[in-house]
Amino acid sequence: MQHRSFATQDCPIARSLERVGEWWSILILRDVFLGLRRFDQLQKSLEIAPNMLARRLGSLVAAGLLERSRYSEHPQRYEYLPTERGCDFRPVMWMLLAWGNKHFSPGGAAVVLLDKQTGALAEPIVVDRVSGRPISDSEFRMAPGPAADERTHHRYGGSAAQEASKPAQAEERPASRQTARRFAGKKAKAG
Amino acid sequence: MQHRSFATQDCPIARSLERVGEWWSILILRDVFLGLRRFDQLQKSLEIAPNMLARRLGSLVAAGLLERSRYSEHPQRYEYLPTERGCDFRPVMWMLLAWGNKHFSPGGAAVVLLDKQTGALAEPIVVDRVSGRPISDSEFRMAPGPAADERTHHRYGGSAAQEASKPAQAEERPASRQTARRFAGKKAKAG
Repeated sequence: MQHRSFATQDCPIARSLERVGEWWSILILRDVFLGLRRFDQLQKSLEIAPNMLARRLGSLVAAGLLERSRYSEHPQRYEYLPTERGCDFRPVMWMLLAWGNKHFSPGGAAVVLLDKQTGALAEPIVVDRVSGRPISDSEFRMAPGPAADERTHHRYGGSAAQEASKPAQAEERPASRQTARRFAGKKAKAG
Repeated sequence: MQHRSFATQDCPIARSLERVGEWWSILILRDVFLGLRRFDQLQKSLEIAPNMLARRLGSLVAAGLLERSRYSEHPQRYEYLPTERGCDFRPVMWMLLAWGNKHFSPGGAAVVLLDKQTGALAEPIVVDRVSGRPISDSEFRMAPGPAADERTHHRYGGSAAQEASKPAQAEERPASRQTARRFAGKKAKAG
C-alpha cells in the first residue's frame, strides 16, 4: 500500500516507523536477532515470498538496520548482520513481546524473556534511566524537544496534552466538520 | 498491501503487529494518547484521507485498542478513547520514540519525554521488573514459553539462539537453496 512518507515528519515515532518499513521487517529483525542470517534460513522461518523477502532485506540494509556481509567467496554468498542501529531496535521488540503476551496470548505465552543467569522469567518494563522510576502517563509526559517544528509544538504543546487523561468535555460540540476543523486548529494554537 | 495474517502465528510479536495494523494505527494511537479523540481532530493532525482514517479507527476498535464513545446526543457524535489494551501499547511507543531520537534525528530531538515532577529529560530504557536489571542480549534471552508450538520451539529453542551473537560459521556453506532449506530444517530440529 502506498502511503505518504513519514520520514519528512518531525515526529521521531513517525520517522522510526518509516525506517522499519512494513511489519515483515520487524519479523525479519526478530529472526536475525535469533541468529538466522541467511536468505534461505529467513525464507524458511518466515514463509515469505522470495521477492518480498529480498525487498524487505534491501530496505533494512538501506535504512542502516542490517549489513550485507559476504561469508563465502566460491560461491559468493551473503548473510545479513544487525548493525548498532538495528540492535538498538530490540527494546521496541521486547515491549511488543510483553504486550502480545499480555493481550493476545489467551492460551499462555508462546515466547518469553528469560534471565540467563537465573533462568527466571523476566518482565520487561520501561523505566527512566535518569531517575530509575517506571515511565507512566501520570509521572511523565511527551513534550516538544529542542528541534521541534511548529506543527510538533502544536501537537504536543497545546492544551490537548494536558487533557489527555480527561474525558472529552461536553461543551466542545462542533456543529459541523468544518467548524470542528477550525476549532481544533484554534485549540492547538491557544495552548 | 495484502499480507498473510500474522494472527494465526504463535509468536506474540507477530500477533501484536497484526493487531496494531498499519503504521497509521500507531500514529493514531499517539494522537489519542495526546488527547485528540475526535475524527476531525485526528484527521487534521495526521493529514490522512477520511476513508483511511475511518478504516484504521474501525480496526483499532475491532482489535480492542480504542473504544467508540458517544459524547453528544443531538447531533450524535462519537470520540475514540483508549482502552486498557490500548494504553498498554504506550511502552512500545516510548521505545520507538527513544530509537527515533537516537538514530533518525540528526538535528536534535523533536519530541522528548519529560519527568512531570522535575521537568528533567527522561531516558526510557527497558529493565526486568523482577530483578531490576536492564534487559540486554548478553544477560537475557528469548525462549519458548509454556504455550509454544513446535515451530516456535524450533525457532527459539534451536542452536540458532545460542549462535545469535556469533558470526556465521564458514563450514556452513549450502550448495543450493534446496540444500540450505533442508540444512536449516535439520539444524532447527537438532537444537
